[in-house]
This record gives sequence, structure tokens and C-alpha cells, in this order.
Amino acid sequence: MVDNDARDFAPDDADGSPFARDDHFHDECGVFGVYGHPEAAALTALGLHALQHRGQEAAGIVTYDGQQFHIERHIGLVGDNFAKPAVMARLKGNRAIGHTRYATTGGQVLRNVQPMFAEFHGGGFAVAHNGNLTNALTLQRQLQLRGSIFQSTSDTETVIHLAATSSKGPLVDRFIDALRQVEGAYAFVALSDKKLIGVRDPLGVRPLVLGDVDGCFVLASETCALDIIGGTVIREIEPGEMVVITDEGLESIRPFAEASSRFCIFEYVYFARPDSIFGGTSVYTVRKRIGQELAREAPVDADVVIPVPDSGNPAAMGFAEAAGLPFDLGIIRNHYVGRTFIQPTDAIRHMGVKLKHNPNRSVIEGKRVILVDDSIVRGTTSQKIVQMVRDAGALEVHMRIASPPTVDPCFYGVDTPEKAKLIAARMSLDELAAYINVDSLAFLSIDGLYRAVGNASRNRNAPQFCDACFTGEYPTRLTDRALAGGGRSLNLLVESQ
Amino acid sequence: MVDNDARDFAPDDADGSPFARDDHFHDECGVFGVYGHPEAAALTALGLHALQHRGQEAAGIVTYDGQQFHIERHIGLVGDNFAKPAVMARLKGNRAIGHTRYATTGGQVLRNVQPMFAEFHGGGFAVAHNGNLTNALTLQRQLQLRGSIFQSTSDTETVIHLAATSSKGPLVDRFIDALRQVEGAYAFVALSDKKLIGVRDPLGVRPLVLGDVDGCFVLASETCALDIIGGTVIREIEPGEMVVITDEGLESIRPFAEASSRFCIFEYVYFARPDSIFGGTSVYTVRKRIGQELAREAPVDADVVIPVPDSGNPAAMGFAEAAGLPFDLGIIRNHYVGRTFIQPTDAIRHMGVKLKHNPNRSVIEGKRVILVDDSIVRGTTSQKIVQMVRDAGALEVHMRIASPPTVDPCFYGVDTPEKAKLIAARMSLDELAAYINVDSLAFLSIDGLYRAVGNASRNRNAPQFCDACFTGEYPTRLTDRALAGGGRSLNLLVESQ
Amino acid sequence: MVDNDARDFAPDDADGSPFARDDHFHDECGVFGVYGHPEAAALTALGLHALQHRGQEAAGIVTYDGQQFHIERHIGLVGDNFAKPAVMARLKGNRAIGHTRYATTGGQVLRNVQPMFAEFHGGGFAVAHNGNLTNALTLQRQLQLRGSIFQSTSDTETVIHLAATSSKGPLVDRFIDALRQVEGAYAFVALSDKKLIGVRDPLGVRPLVLGDVDGCFVLASETCALDIIGGTVIREIEPGEMVVITDEGLESIRPFAEASSRFCIFEYVYFARPDSIFGGTSVYTVRKRIGQELAREAPVDADVVIPVPDSGNPAAMGFAEAAGLPFDLGIIRNHYVGRTFIQPTDAIRHMGVKLKHNPNRSVIEGKRVILVDDSIVRGTTSQKIVQMVRDAGALEVHMRIASPPTVDPCFYGVDTPEKAKLIAARMSLDELAAYINVDSLAFLSIDGLYRAVGNASRNRNAPQFCDACFTGEYPTRLTDRALAGGGRSLNLLVESQ
Amino acid sequence: MVDNDARDFAPDDADGSPFARDDHFHDECGVFGVYGHPEAAALTALGLHALQHRGQEAAGIVTYDGQQFHIERHIGLVGDNFAKPAVMARLKGNRAIGHTRYATTGGQVLRNVQPMFAEFHGGGFAVAHNGNLTNALTLQRQLQLRGSIFQSTSDTETVIHLAATSSKGPLVDRFIDALRQVEGAYAFVALSDKKLIGVRDPLGVRPLVLGDVDGCFVLASETCALDIIGGTVIREIEPGEMVVITDEGLESIRPFAEASSRFCIFEYVYFARPDSIFGGTSVYTVRKRIGQELAREAPVDADVVIPVPDSGNPAAMGFAEAAGLPFDLGIIRNHYVGRTFIQPTDAIRHMGVKLKHNPNRSVIEGKRVILVDDSIVRGTTSQKIVQMVRDAGALEVHMRIASPPTVDPCFYGVDTPEKAKLIAARMSLDELAAYINVDSLAFLSIDGLYRAVGNASRNRNAPQFCDACFTGEYPTRLTDRALAGGGRSLNLLVESQ
Repeated sequence: MVDNDARDFAPDDADGSPFARDDHFHDECGVFGVYGHPEAAALTALGLHALQHRGQEAAGIVTYDGQQFHIERHIGLVGDNFAKPAVMARLKGNRAIGHTRYATTGGQVLRNVQPMFAEFHGGGFAVAHNGNLTNALTLQRQLQLRGSIFQSTSDTETVIHLAATSSKGPLVDRFIDALRQVEGAYAFVALSDKKLIGVRDPLGVRPLVLGDVDGCFVLASETCALDIIGGTVIREIEPGEMVVITDEGLESIRPFAEASSRFCIFEYVYFARPDSIFGGTSVYTVRKRIGQELAREAPVDADVVIPVPDSGNPAAMGFAEAAGLPFDLGIIRNHYVGRTFIQPTDAIRHMGVKLKHNPNRSVIEGKRVILVDDSIVRGTTSQKIVQMVRDAGALEVHMRIASPPTVDPCFYGVDTPEKAKLIAARMSLDELAAYINVDSLAFLSIDGLYRAVGNASRNRNAPQFCDACFTGEYPTRLTDRALAGGGRSLNLLVESQ
Repeated sequence: MVDNDARDFAPDDADGSPFARDDHFHDECGVFGVYGHPEAAALTALGLHALQHRGQEAAGIVTYDGQQFHIERHIGLVGDNFAKPAVMARLKGNRAIGHTRYATTGGQVLRNVQPMFAEFHGGGFAVAHNGNLTNALTLQRQLQLRGSIFQSTSDTETVIHLAATSSKGPLVDRFIDALRQVEGAYAFVALSDKKLIGVRDPLGVRPLVLGDVDGCFVLASETCALDIIGGTVIREIEPGEMVVITDEGLESIRPFAEASSRFCIFEYVYFARPDSIFGGTSVYTVRKRIGQELAREAPVDADVVIPVPDSGNPAAMGFAEAAGLPFDLGIIRNHYVGRTFIQPTDAIRHMGVKLKHNPNRSVIEGKRVILVDDSIVRGTTSQKIVQMVRDAGALEVHMRIASPPTVDPCFYGVDTPEKAKLIAARMSLDELAAYINVDSLAFLSIDGLYRAVGNASRNRNAPQFCDACFTGEYPTRLTDRALAGGGRSLNLLVESQ
Repeated sequence: MVDNDARDFAPDDADGSPFARDDHFHDECGVFGVYGHPEAAALTALGLHALQHRGQEAAGIVTYDGQQFHIERHIGLVGDNFAKPAVMARLKGNRAIGHTRYATTGGQVLRNVQPMFAEFHGGGFAVAHNGNLTNALTLQRQLQLRGSIFQSTSDTETVIHLAATSSKGPLVDRFIDALRQVEGAYAFVALSDKKLIGVRDPLGVRPLVLGDVDGCFVLASETCALDIIGGTVIREIEPGEMVVITDEGLESIRPFAEASSRFCIFEYVYFARPDSIFGGTSVYTVRKRIGQELAREAPVDADVVIPVPDSGNPAAMGFAEAAGLPFDLGIIRNHYVGRTFIQPTDAIRHMGVKLKHNPNRSVIEGKRVILVDDSIVRGTTSQKIVQMVRDAGALEVHMRIASPPTVDPCFYGVDTPEKAKLIAARMSLDELAAYINVDSLAFLSIDGLYRAVGNASRNRNAPQFCDACFTGEYPTRLTDRALAGGGRSLNLLVESQ
Repeated sequence: MVDNDARDFAPDDADGSPFARDDHFHDECGVFGVYGHPEAAALTALGLHALQHRGQEAAGIVTYDGQQFHIERHIGLVGDNFAKPAVMARLKGNRAIGHTRYATTGGQVLRNVQPMFAEFHGGGFAVAHNGNLTNALTLQRQLQLRGSIFQSTSDTETVIHLAATSSKGPLVDRFIDALRQVEGAYAFVALSDKKLIGVRDPLGVRPLVLGDVDGCFVLASETCALDIIGGTVIREIEPGEMVVITDEGLESIRPFAEASSRFCIFEYVYFARPDSIFGGTSVYTVRKRIGQELAREAPVDADVVIPVPDSGNPAAMGFAEAAGLPFDLGIIRNHYVGRTFIQPTDAIRHMGVKLKHNPNRSVIEGKRVILVDDSIVRGTTSQKIVQMVRDAGALEVHMRIASPPTVDPCFYGVDTPEKAKLIAARMSLDELAAYINVDSLAFLSIDGLYRAVGNASRNRNAPQFCDACFTGEYPTRLTDRALAGGGRSLNLLVESQ
């Protein structure tokens, strides 16, 4: 889910911290759910820890103990907050859902942290969400006119209000009634006093997998969240499928009209963990294949292939392999990053402080270097890294990017700058090469990317994936986009807690 | 306001802390509002500090700066939280409302702290409340059926939802529409982007005064909140009156059917600060008169009159004066009390730890002592204090209580034990005297109390005050009381923040 | 004890908080010790709570469990820090000493909080101290030359280093050796692995009493610390006496040359709690007698006697009694004060914010008022209170002060401004009356004060008390005062913890 | 430096956190100093951030502003504590030293965090230390007999007391006098009001480099701390060399008898960052050479070489290169680790929770795998990783270790288990291979290691490095080891702060 008021956040220079935005698109959430396990909260915490790359700023868990729901939501890493025995002891019960979250506005606002919880006439209802609804604001305004009171800027709350005011009876019917009114991309997990529910939008843009641990059903954004707890993958939840898990087992429902799958292709490029598996193929394998495609599409005479760590590693290995060139770790990454890292004063900024990356001069000096990175968003980090590699003695620097140019923002639960800040939307290839100061620059073609994920090519009439960030072809309506005045909808600016 | 789930809280032994419940009824909230002053938040913090005796566990302030609302709500004393420059700096704007609060359930839950804020279709709306609605749960259930989602157990939120779902147009009309549906006692302050609103229930059970500071209108529960900021009293808001303060000035509205005033008589006995003024008479003066009435009704031959400090002081002085006996400070009170004070272990509890009171032996030894206290609720504190005075060498101990026996709980925003725990409802006067181990015991008569507040006597057909805790005659319906299953209405047990 | 670097702290305006310095001299520490009781830490916490008026900014407790010492030192009230079960659980053992502390410099520095602990060759040694050494800096410089390393600015540490570097063998001998080198006033409690030690300086300037609880020896600054735990007073430790408490019982040692007692007479005026007893007479009784003396020395025709609460209460009662005038509570004090209270902005300061005191108009209006206060230090508070009483409608205001003019600073563990800031040292009586704007002003005479404490008069050749703050006659040498450069001796300005 | 009371800390299972000890030897500290730069504190914070791998549990910085020293010491990562503007603003001055620290005992005790500071007669003196003194306890006992009082268990404090009690005059002479009495390994940085001092022990066991940033001298444990601030390396401080940096420049002193260098060879194996340079060669290059040596010494027929990330990466790459086998990332590491990570309950421990590592099945399945790790300490992690790789479908698992067997503990500032817990000291190669369940196991030979660092072979009569952990040949005396009763020397168990 995306905060409506977070859309504009786009620092120009955010080096060094997982919390500062680096120069990437970022998936905004991971979700997890488990039903019937005595260690439900602990498994959820572990699952969220494995999904931490999908959202590092806050996390929450809701459990149900047969009598009461329990909720814990905290700003910060899963491991910092959900390792505390006191926190875990409060999360009683054998079913749980959890959420880890990327973006918030300047002041991190706890009321926007998920899962969200509401008291319905028939009982409690907790919901967590990965994705974004493209008509949430429009619906919110209609609901407010009707008397619904919003506590947050989250589109998750819109769905909760839609369910609360539904004319249907049972909770599942209300939830379906709500989902039929929304547009956009989503993977929800929800918990009532009787049920654990998982659902993907009709196009299946965001991922959600079904697994098993100790004979209990588990839902998670990626398979790596099953691996960490020793679980096994059963299958992916299908696009447009809702699964309802109760004491009686799992029921699969198809509440929506049939549609062709449009899974997010950027999950392969950058969002997902390399050890996760989608459609039977590991993300790591796809990334190596991407590197191979790239080497074939844009070869260059050079001495060494160096990844921008860590996300560029597999593509760089694939590139080196296909190009028959040595692969080497020419840039060392410092993984010790604090919560809010040292902001260099102006006085020392000019020194070229290298909080996150340091060149490994012995690998670079006197060499013609091919740098492989996964994507370029604003270009600022690329510029710095190229300069750093040149300062370390590279004779030539050739940049190869393991995806097509990102020229359009994402509206499906990914933190992206507006189009005007996407450097590839503003510059030609030559301009961009000059801007980041490389001897040559190449992006993977869109068809190359489709080949790497296993298709012969992109079907232009009915693309097999959502690739809107590369093509501008959005697979759903973008209703809110037309709203006058844009996203802000709350009058309460800051709620400090 | 009262949390619906806080009604049963009744520790048997709570000595020593303003946070532990001592053996008193406690008024549960103080409210404050100011319109048009550049120091709105600071004045509100000061006003709440002066009203701290009405609620010590949490406080909140909402301001509006012409563009945005700002809210700060914190567990703890006003002076601990609203002295911080960073907190105050966030409370921008020249209009504000504030709330200080007594009771919460075991885990102090921030979401129940006031003011409450909601986004309405037409803008933000913040509300704070002193009192309690006796049909809040009934209304809440109706609202939930309609699709309203509750975030708290507060009856304040019920009123907000009633306003949100009202079919009326303008905010004031919606608020009136909501208030016409509620029963009980209340003094609300509310803030929209254009208006500061104050309103008392039709019987005027809870107090609300209108004042002026630097030419700006101020609303406050008691006059002492005007004194602290150098303000002046204009008048009391009348029972059933709503005042709407805007840039254009103050408008007085009478939304309800006319009714006779039933101001809470216990405000005079204990709740209000002695330096506050109601109906032109200071509470201190009434309390001295109460002591005088008591001396006339229940004289006894003795050597010294000693108050149970500090609430018994004025009545003891009045008693001594009328009885022609010396007044002396025979019990010393320790005002240094921590947030959650030292819980004596069982091993040292028997030693008779005296956290809060210590006898002043030089005043007591060898004397026949008259102890004056304001009321007896459970009797446990009285028992200890009598024993302490005997241990300090008193020859006789005569207890005089500056109010009639409290035999019924209050449902109008006061924290009282259920009837079965009110010792005066369970014991005869003689039994109670024996229980607390005094040589004689007397309570003020109900007519004596009415005389002290300036009436010839209580009008039995139409009592001039709400005195339900002494008489069981409740001036409003108690609709929720009939609800099966009682108060609890939320499925979410703990939300830690 | 006094921080050498805290001597100059003297805010001109410190209204409203126990932490802000109000316009009083302040005793700077309370000490407590207990030996052999299974609840040693809890009793110490309770004792320190009863001594909280002697120091409100920090507190510490050291226990010994037969194997190890345990220490907890915290900024803040005893009840805020030592009520936490986790803190108390760490303080294992059946013997303990504790300390509560008034003054620190701007940044409250934990390393100066007592008790102090040192590893000696023969074992651990913890020391806490009430008083001040007047040659501590001189000794510190000698010790530093010898290689001793100081961690704090506390004179307590000077004594510890003197003991550590003593040529004597056993710990008690080393401690005595150290004490024989120091000048000033002190009451120490100390704890080794075998002994609880208490000692008063040869003149007995600062108090220390010996008590019993459950058959165990207790040491405390005042008797009220015995009352709170249900203990009994055995006797006062005598001036120049050291008591050494072990499993074998109590041994009394006289390490110093005989000297006449010079107990601090200001303990009666203001420092001690009214329910504490020194020399068989309660402080409350002395204060009432002071009021009586004052009424005899400086009568005035008036309608009502009003105390400046709470410290002026007993003297005002004594005054009213002797003068045959009514006593009334004309000023109400707000006891809810936060840690660091609301600093009024300049914009609202002029409004005459009344954080701490509010006049009770009904008692004052149209009356000729006698105000009784215990002392005047800088005069700023008196000025404000007189104005407040006039604004409330007093016809005349006569100020009576329950002590002689304070014209000299204290160097014996009391926080006093330098002489130039003592208003009575700078102004004649008439000037002062004009400054604080009263119709008449009178101080108690020094002989009147001596009469109130039970002497016929002050013995000018050999005063029975230390009264240096009234007379400038210091009973010990003031060696450090002559040091060039004054007090500061540490190069480390801030240690944040 | 090493806490004397930390020597025994050796959890058997510490997976998943940089704070939990994983199965490695750990260097215990990094030091940094800068003289004359306006951004001294910020540069020091950045330098410590780059040295974070040398100590992750606490960090401290001392600055001097020409008048006063300022100190900040905090538990936690540099980036968490020294990013706060308030902290940095307190660290005024243009010279600074800093320290980052690995080990503490169970309760992390702030008083042991460095730099340590002492008030000397002539001024303040701050010291930070990487290494360990092998006669610190012996010296401490002598100093205590003389009257020195210790505040910590740190051997750094021993050196400070030696300097304080030295009979020499100037500070540098006192410091040299102190160092001449100590045995062991050390790299000190020290700051007085006039000087920044750096010194390495006569054998140069621990590293210290001299650099330049903006024309100012910098001292740091590794060159990567110069890189981060855009500095340049001047040279390494030589074994036994002291440099004294003042406004006049740098003076080099040789206070000790000449000795042959015995630099710690384990710095190359694991401690240092790969991008750091010692003796002109990057650590990364040495590690790749180690992998090449290992491939030559212990070849095996297999399909893929997989590192245990991240420390095994370069050696694995070198191995793959030399063996002509593919290198692949078969194990994915989760870098999001919390402060105190989730402790799996017993109930879920058996599930094989994989907090830190997850196999990349696509790379492993059906393959004969060579796993390359840098060392084996207790063997527990190796056991788990091998099992994990087998579960992911490996046909064979061959383990190759990039160092000789670690059979002896280090006493020079490295956190190592006692000998009995070093698995290679207890088992033969075959036993160990069986224990960790591999098809084959080989360690690098000691001569192979010497070859990788550039020597023809180890000189058995005068080894070129300290390799005591592999050989048991300690280059200094181990005086404290003979002390009866072992390390503990403080009676104060817990000081909570």
C-alpha cells in the first residue's frame, strides 16, 4: 500500500542507509500470515525478517487468541522490535498476520503502520496490504460523505471502510464486496476471529505465495519467508484468487472476472530476494540470465566485470560468464548502516564521503572496467560510483544496466519519483552517458528482459507482465490521478506518538 | 468522558500516588479551549496544568494553524510532556483545545487519550469531553451496524460518529444533531477549522466557564484555569447552552429543551480546586461552611481538630472555628510521589509503610482528636489513618465526614467503585465506626450540604443539584446499564505504542 | 556534599518546579543506610522517598549481597526510579546505603550522583554524603599530584581517595585517617563488605539519626525516614561520633578531638520536614514557636494571617495564635509540577502566569493581610506573591519572616546564592519593604530564633548552633575559598550518558 | 583492549546477529584520531563507521576545543548514535580520538566503553586502545595497593593509572613510562590538551596507519577509515613507534628496544576489511591468493565453488579461478539484523530457522559443491551450513578453509574461546570432517598462508608474523595468565546506566 501523502517524497541525495532512499525503485511492503500454529507470532516475526528488503521502516503483527486480538506496530526493523520478549509475549494466539513497510512521510507516523484493525459489528478485522489502489482517494471521498471517519492516509483503511459499510452479511462477502470496488494492485492478508484470508488482485501484479509449516497454512509475499522458518511452498496464490483458511481447511474463491496475469516484472529485476522463487524459477537465475542477455546485446572490450553491490552481483556474474571476462568485487559495501545515518555537513560533503561504497583499488587500477547495475533512477548514485571507480585508477568505465530505462512512475505500491525526476525519461542515452561520465552505456532491451524471464519476447498486444515503469502501459485505470488537488486528503498534519 | 471498559477498575489498596487511585471519587477530565491567541498552545498547556487535579494520567492538545490541525497526546502529567519545546513548537496556530484525563484501563492506551480528531468531508473536527454519556454503547452498536468503525472505547468517539453520519449539512448542525441523541452529562470543547465550540448538557451536571485573556475567548472546566494565565471570568456556560466562537465573535445557541439545572454537588465537596468559583462562591468558602455545618450537626468534646490533608483542610478549619476548638496540622503529607510508586513487598507491607501521610506526634499525643475528611469511599484509607493517629498517642479519635455517605456510583464522568464496594452502602453508621475504629463517627446530612452551598434545604421534588451518589436519584436515563454483557465492546485488547 | 562546580548556580527566576530552584536555601542531600534486613533496598528506597525534600534531582542506592556490590543511580525522583521492579531486583543483599541529591550543574551529570563506589585493595567501598568539605579542592590537588585520578567533581570522591592512599591498614582506620584531613560539615554513610558506617563531623552541623527497624540498625538524615518504614528512633549520632555496624552489633568510635555542637539552625527554619524530630522536639513545634516569637516581636493590626504555603504554614499558625488573629489559607498551591516545567515564553510571561500559587480571593478581598514566609533569599518570589495578594483585593499587606535576614552564603552542603545576590545583604529593611511592596516588613531576631529552638538566647562567644547564614560566623576554616581560580577543577565539561 | 572480565564469554550458538557472536574470532576494537580539522568529530564518526567491523557494540569519541574536553560514549552502532545532531554538536573542537568496540560482558557496561578520560594534575588525558595487555591485572593489583582507584575492568585504565602515578614530568614522558611497564599488543591513540599521540607496541601486532585529510594528520586502525573521508595514506606507524602530533607538526619517537615486527596474520584472514591495505597489498588480494594456494594444496573434483558469505567470498573466487571451476553465490545472506535478534523459542528452534543464511537452491541442486570459509572456530555454524547445502540438493559437499586450524586462543585483543572450545584443537581432521558432515575437509597450511601474504615460507626461528592462534607461539610474556583466581577483579557486579 502507498500513503497518499507520501507520493512526493524524493530526496535527491540519499546515500548510505537502508532508511534513506537510495537510487532505486522500492517495493513498499511485505505481508505474511499463518493459521493454527502455536508459535504464530514468532513465525510471523521471522517471516517478516526474511521480507525486510520489501520494507524497512516499520512493521506490525496482529494475532488472535480465540478471545481477543493483539496488535504491535513499531517503527524500525523487525529484528529490533520483534525480538523483545515482552513484545512477543503480548502477541498471544495461534494465528497471525504481519506487515513490513517501506515508505512513510517525513515524520514516520505510526497510525499508518499496518496491519490495520477495525471493530466490525460482527467482530474484529485486521488487514495488511502490499500494493496500491489507484482509486482509493476517490472512494475515500465517497465514504467520508457517507459519514465514515478515516484515521490514516492508507488505502488499506479505504478497503476496511468499504467492507464495514457493505450491505452484505458475512465478513468474507463484505470483503469481496469491498475489493470489487477497488482498482489497482494488491496482495492482502486479513485476519478475523475465524479466518485467515489471502487475496491477489485480478492481474496478480503483486506476489503472494501459499506455504506449509508444520502442517499449518502460511501466506507470504515471497518464498524466502517460508525458507527461514523451514516451511515448504505449496503454490502461488493465483491472480484474482482469494483463499479463506479456517479450522476446516482452505477454500479457494474466484470473486473477480477472469483476466490475464500481469505480474510485476521489476520483482525479478530488483525487488525480490535472489533466493526467492516465482513461477518455478529463482530470481537469482533470472538475474544471471539478464546479465547474459545484456552481454549479448551490448558487448564491450574490457578487462574486468564489476558489480555495483549487492543488487548488481548476479547480473554481473552472468555478464562476465557470457562475455568470457573475469568477474571481480571491485566495490566494497559497508553493511553497517545506522538508523539515520550521519549527515555530512556541507564542510565535509565535498570530500567525497563514501559511507556505503569503497573502491577496491587493487581490482580496478589500470583496468578497463565494465560496471553492472540493476537500474538507474535519478542517476546521482551512478555518477558518484563512476567517479569513485575512475579515482581508483580505472582506464575506462563502461556501464551496463540490467533493465530497460525506467521512464514512468509506478502506481502499484512501489516508491518511485515522479516522471520528471526519472533521468532516463529526460535524457537521451548519449546525454545520460555523458552525465554519469562513462565511456559507454547500455540498457537491456525490453525484449531481452522478457527473454531472461522465459518468454520469447514481449507480446505487445497483451504483455505477459506489468512493465509500466519501462513502457508507460498501465494495466489498470488510474482514477485518483485525475483528482484535482492530488493526493493529500487529511487535515491533521502531524500526530506524534 | 469515561471509558466503557474502565468502569470496573477498583483497586482495594491504592495509597500514595496521584496515579494510584486513593480512596476518593475522582472527576475524570478537565477541558480547555482558546480562540485567536498567538500563544494558544502555551495557554492551553497552562490551563490544563491548573486543571491537573481533574485528571492526571494523560493530556492532549489540538491546535489549528489556518491550514492544518496539529495534535499531541501523551501519557503523564501536563508539566512533564507539554513543557518540552519540541512538543510545543509542533502545536502551531492561534486556536486550541486541550484535555486532561484521569482514568484509563490497566495498560494506559494512547488511542483513548483526548482530544479525539476526525476527518470530516468538510474538514477536521477535534473534540474533548468531560462527563459521560449513559447511552454511548447503545449508540455505538447502532453505528457499527451502519458501518462506522470505532478506534477507541471512548464515548467521545460515539459523538464524533453521530456527527459524521448526520444528515445535516454544516458542522455545528451535525454536532447538535449528535448531541440531541445522547444522554448523560457532558461539557464538550470542540475545534473545527473555523470554530471553537463549547457546550454543556441540558442539566449542566459538569462545569464549563467562559473567560477572557488578552481579549480572546477561553473555555475551561474551572476558573482556576483562567487565573493561571491571568485571565478573567466572563460567566459560566449555562446548562444546555452551546457557544460557537469564530472570528466574528461568540454566538450562544440553545439546542435543547429547557430543563432545570442539576450541577454536580460533589464538585464542591471534593472535585474542584478550592480557589475555583462556581455560582459566585469560592469552593474554599463552601468547604469551610460545610465544616461549620458539620460542627453544628455533630459536635463532640475534644482537644484538637485535625484535617486529613489536603482535601480535608478547609472543612476542618470551618469545624474548628464553629466548635471553638484549636485547628492543627496533625498529619503531614509527602507530596513527592513518583509515577508508579514503590509497591511494598509483602515482606514489608506489614510494617505499616507510610508513603503519603505521617503523623505529627507533637500535635496528637495525649489529645482527644477530631479528624475531618471529605468523604469515605471504601474505608481502607480511613482505617489506616485512624490507626496511625492512635499510634501517635491520641486518647480518642472522632471522625467527621464533610459530606453525606456515598452510597451509589456515579455514571456522569466520575470514577467510582460499584455500589457493592461503597462501604457506606454496606454498613450502618455504627458498623462503619467500628470498622474504622473511631470513638465516634458522623457524616454531614444532605440538607446540611445543601445549606453549605447556599440553599435552605434540598428540594426533594426537584433537587437543585445532582446528588445521585448520596441519594441514588439519577437525573438522566441510564440506557447502557440495561445492556446485556455490560461495557466491553472492543475485540482488540492491547495496542501498545 | 556539594559539587565544586555547582557553587555559582543561581537562577534569578525559578518559579514553579521543585527542580527549578525556588527562592529558598536548599539542603543538598539526604542519606540512609540499613544493615542486615532482607528488604534492605526497599527500605532504603522508602527512606530516601521520605527524605526527598532534601534532594530531588537524583538518587542512588548501593547494596551488598555477601559477594558483590550492586549500584543503581538515577536522575529523577526516588519514586520514579526505584519503584521499578527490575531496578529493585538488581539491588540484591541485606545491607544498603542510599543518597538523594539536590544540586547538579546545568547538565545533570550521572557521574556525580551518589553513592560513590571504589574498588580498594581490600574490597569494595561505597560512600554517600550530606554536607560539604571546605578543603576538598585543596586536598584534591594534592592527591592529583600524587597520581590519583578523579572521576567526578564530588568532595565525596576526595574522601575516597584519601582513604585509598592512606598508609593505614584496615578500612575503618583508613576512613578515619581520611576524615581527620578534611574540614567542613558532613554526615557520611558508608558500606564495605563487612560494615555499615555512619559518621558526623566534629561540630555535628548536618544531622544523622540512628534507628531500628525489625531489630536492624538504620541510619538516616531525619527521623521521618524511620517513620515511613515503621521504625523507631534510638538516638542521634553525636557530633564527632562514628558508628560501625557489623554482624556483631554497633561500635561507637570518637576519632576526633572533642568540640561543642554547632547543629545547623536552618534545619529548624526550613530544611527538615515538620514531622521530623531533633533533640526531642519536633520541627513543627519549633516552627509554631517561631511564629509566636515573631508575633510578639513584630505585631501589627490586621484581619487575617496567611501563610506562604507550605513552608510558612506552621509559623503562620503560631503567629495567628499568639496574635489572636484568624489563620486562613489565602494562597492555594498547585502540587502538580512536572519535571521541567513549562517555561513561559516572553509573550505570555507578562500575563503573570501563576504556575505554583493562586490567591484565594474570598479569604483576601477587603482584608488587611499578614503574610508569613520562612525566609527571603533573593526577594523575587516575595515580590510576586505580594503583588498577587494585592491584586486579589488585600487592603494592606504586612510581611513577617520566620527567620533573621539571610546575609551570608552557606559552605556546608546548602545551595545558596553568593552574598551579592542575597537581597537582605544588599538592602536595608526599609529598602527591602519598598522593593517587595509591603506596608510593613519584619524579620525574626536571632535571639528570637534561639528562643524558639529552646535557648534563652544566642551565646555570642560560643553559639549553640551554626548560624553562619545569619551572622557570617563560620564554625570551620574555609580553606578552598582562598584558592586562586575558584572551584572548577575538571577539564571534562560534559559527559552525556 | 580486552575486559578482564570478558574473557570467558563464549556462547555456543550465536547465529544471526553482528551482536551475537558468530563462529569467528573477532578483533575487538578500532581506533581513530585527527588533529586540527574543523570537522574533527564528524571525521572521527565517519572513520569509526568505516571501522565498525572491528567492534560493533559500542563507540566513543572525545574532542578537545582548546578549553575543555567533550566525551560521548554510547552502546550501539556508530551510525545509530553519532548521527544525532545533538550528540555531534556537543563534540566541539578541532581534535578528536574515537574508539569502536567489540566485546563486553553480558550487561553492556558503559563505564568500560572507550575512550577513557582522566584528570591529570597537568590537564585532561583521553586514551583509546586496540589490543590487550598481558600483564594488566598484575599491574592493577600493584596500583591498587598504592591507592589507585579503578573505575573499570579495562586495561586501558591500567595504563592511565601508570601514567598518573609516574614520577616523570611531562605527559608524553609519563605515557612512555607507563608503556614501558606493560606487556602485550596495542595500538593506542591518546589526546591531551596539546597533543594527539599514536603508538604501536614494539612488535606491531595490532595495526595503526597515519594519513592525511585536508592537510591534517589522521591516525586509524585501517586504511579504509581514510578512504571514507577522502583521505590519503601517508604510511603505517612502525612497530614500537610513537608519533606525537602538535600544532608544530609530527614528531616520531622510539621509546622501546628494537624488535622484529610480528604483525597479526589473522588481520589478513578475517579481521580487516578487504579494501584495506597493509604493507602495500590489499587484504582482498591476499584473500584471493589464499584461495589460490588452497586450491593448489587441496584440490577436489567438483561442479561449483560457493563461498560462505561474505567473509569467504574472495578466497572462494581465488579458489575457483585457480581450480578452473565456476564460482557462484549459492548462499544468500540476510543483512537486516536487529540489535538483539529474535531468539527462537525451543518450540521453533528445531525447524532449522535460517536467520542469516538461506541456500540458493538453483545454484546447488544436483551439484558437487566446494564450500569455502575463512576459518572454523567452534564448528557449529559450519555444521548448520553444510546441512543447509545438503538439504538444498548438493550431491557432495567439500569444505575448504582459508586458514590453518585455529588451535590456540589469542591474548592480544581478539575475542576467542578458550582452547577447550576450539574444535580444531580437540579433533583430528577426519573427526572434524565427520562432525560437520562433509565429504572432504582441508585447511590451508601455515606455509601456504605465509606464501599468500608474500613470504616464501614461515621462518620457524623468527616468524615474520604473530600466528599464535595457529601455532601457540606467543610473541610476548603472558604474565596475568599465571595469576591465581583468574581475571575478575571488581567487586561491583552491575552498574546500570
